[in-house]
Amino acid sequence: MRIDILTLFPEMFEGVLQTSILKKAMESGAFHYNYVNFRDYTKNKHNKVDDYPYGGGAGMVLTPQPIFDAVEDITKEVETKPKIVLMCPQGQPYNQKKAVELAKEDHLIFICGHYEGYDERIRQQLVTDEISIGDYVLTGGELGAMVVIDSVIRLLPGVLGNEDSAPQDSFSQGLLEHPHYTRPANFRGMKVPEVLTSGHHGKIEEWRKKESLKRTFERRKDLLKEYPLTEEEKAWLKQLEDLKNSDSIV
Amino acid sequence: MRIDILTLFPEMFEGVLQTSILKKAMESGAFHYNYVNFRDYTKNKHNKVDDYPYGGGAGMVLTPQPIFDAVEDITKEVETKPKIVLMCPQGQPYNQKKAVELAKEDHLIFICGHYEGYDERIRQQLVTDEISIGDYVLTGGELGAMVVIDSVIRLLPGVLGNEDSAPQDSFSQGLLEHPHYTRPANFRGMKVPEVLTSGHHGKIEEWRKKESLKRTFERRKDLLKEYPLTEEEKAWLKQLEDLKNSDSIV
Repeated sequence: MRIDILTLFPEMFEGVLQTSILKKAMESGAFHYNYVNFRDYTKNKHNKVDDYPYGGGAGMVLTPQPIFDAVEDITKEVETKPKIVLMCPQGQPYNQKKAVELAKEDHLIFICGHYEGYDERIRQQLVTDEISIGDYVLTGGELGAMVVIDSVIRLLPGVLGNEDSAPQDSFSQGLLEHPHYTRPANFRGMKVPEVLTSGHHGKIEEWRKKESLKRTFERRKDLLKEYPLTEEEKAWLKQLEDLKNSDSIV
Repeated sequence: MRIDILTLFPEMFEGVLQTSILKKAMESGAFHYNYVNFRDYTKNKHNKVDDYPYGGGAGMVLTPQPIFDAVEDITKEVETKPKIVLMCPQGQPYNQKKAVELAKEDHLIFICGHYEGYDERIRQQLVTDEISIGDYVLTGGELGAMVVIDSVIRLLPGVLGNEDSAPQDSFSQGLLEHPHYTRPANFRGMKVPEVLTSGHHGKIEEWRKKESLKRTFERRKDLLKEYPLTEEEKAWLKQLEDLKNSDSIV
């Protein structure tokens, strides 16, 4: 996969892209990346990338010309049509499904603004996807791009070893993960649940499934709406609901 | 504000913490930060921070001892009780309201795991907050911690100048932002809406409010549930709904 990052602050990315799994993925050839400082594409005397908003008001707005020119420069010799992703709070909320979708692409271009608005014509005519990583305000699109890149690259074939295999992660299954325990069996009086040391694989499996469902029920009921419950899971969920109702009466 | 970051990969953070607004905020004394590599707190021969999960299965689990000891070492001489934040997919979904809440604290401690589970006893006995920045799978908690730090620090008094003032950002108001335009008025045939160059401030204000509502209606209906609509806004929304219904009939 090829990744181009349009940013005024390429130095923000190196620590993340040059560490751990992303570093290994790059070294193995699973992806390569390139920074494009769109200030290099300005045509004005002071290399300004922003200007005052029409209609007045606080804040500056990124002008369309350098960003259009930078993207066109990147895409003029490519054979496949890249996804051109604008990182912005107004974008589609990012989730694992979108990560899976982007992981199928050959070429992604990220446009990262920095504490400023984008001229609307960039949205209208240039980008293919607008993405928001969550409902909070960040200084720029750089952290968002890193989040998308990390979540996408780890889905590429061969990037994760067996021990870190993607399918069992939270959200891949649609439910939150069950609790994990490791040694010691007793840590400051807090003990590992007996079932986990029983050696009974069927019971361990059932405990994990139930705990996963319970955690999702307690913390993220919204995820259950999307999840295809089995008959057995529906029965467990009914038990959890009954328990909760009896609690609230007492 | 004091921030301690428990991580095995401190080098991931520097590019983000040493750039732009975060750098200025640190230099101005608005916050200071410190990395704690919890591997330094291990007591075993090979400085292992993880171990196999009880009950079997793929993946490793971070053991409780180094993380408990690291946090206790940080907190033994502090006067105010810090928030101890675990970055994890099972956490409370992060949003701007939570950012505002955390910005009132004096001391935040972030625990960042890296492609492994946390021993459940860390959740049960040590942390005060579990936070997820979104429903996607990341390699570790480091990017999540950077996202939370960026969104919190920019809310601290004096960190943002007038031109970047926080209150007008998306989510601060509960609606998505209206479109922005800057020069040129005509870019490759795409023109700025006339109202914005009219000089009529009342009309500009109304256009922006309507566009903000329209964008939220089209892209993020879920945000409207939480937003206290004025009577005027309710009427505009009704128009948008009628327009949408008539479109879908045609």
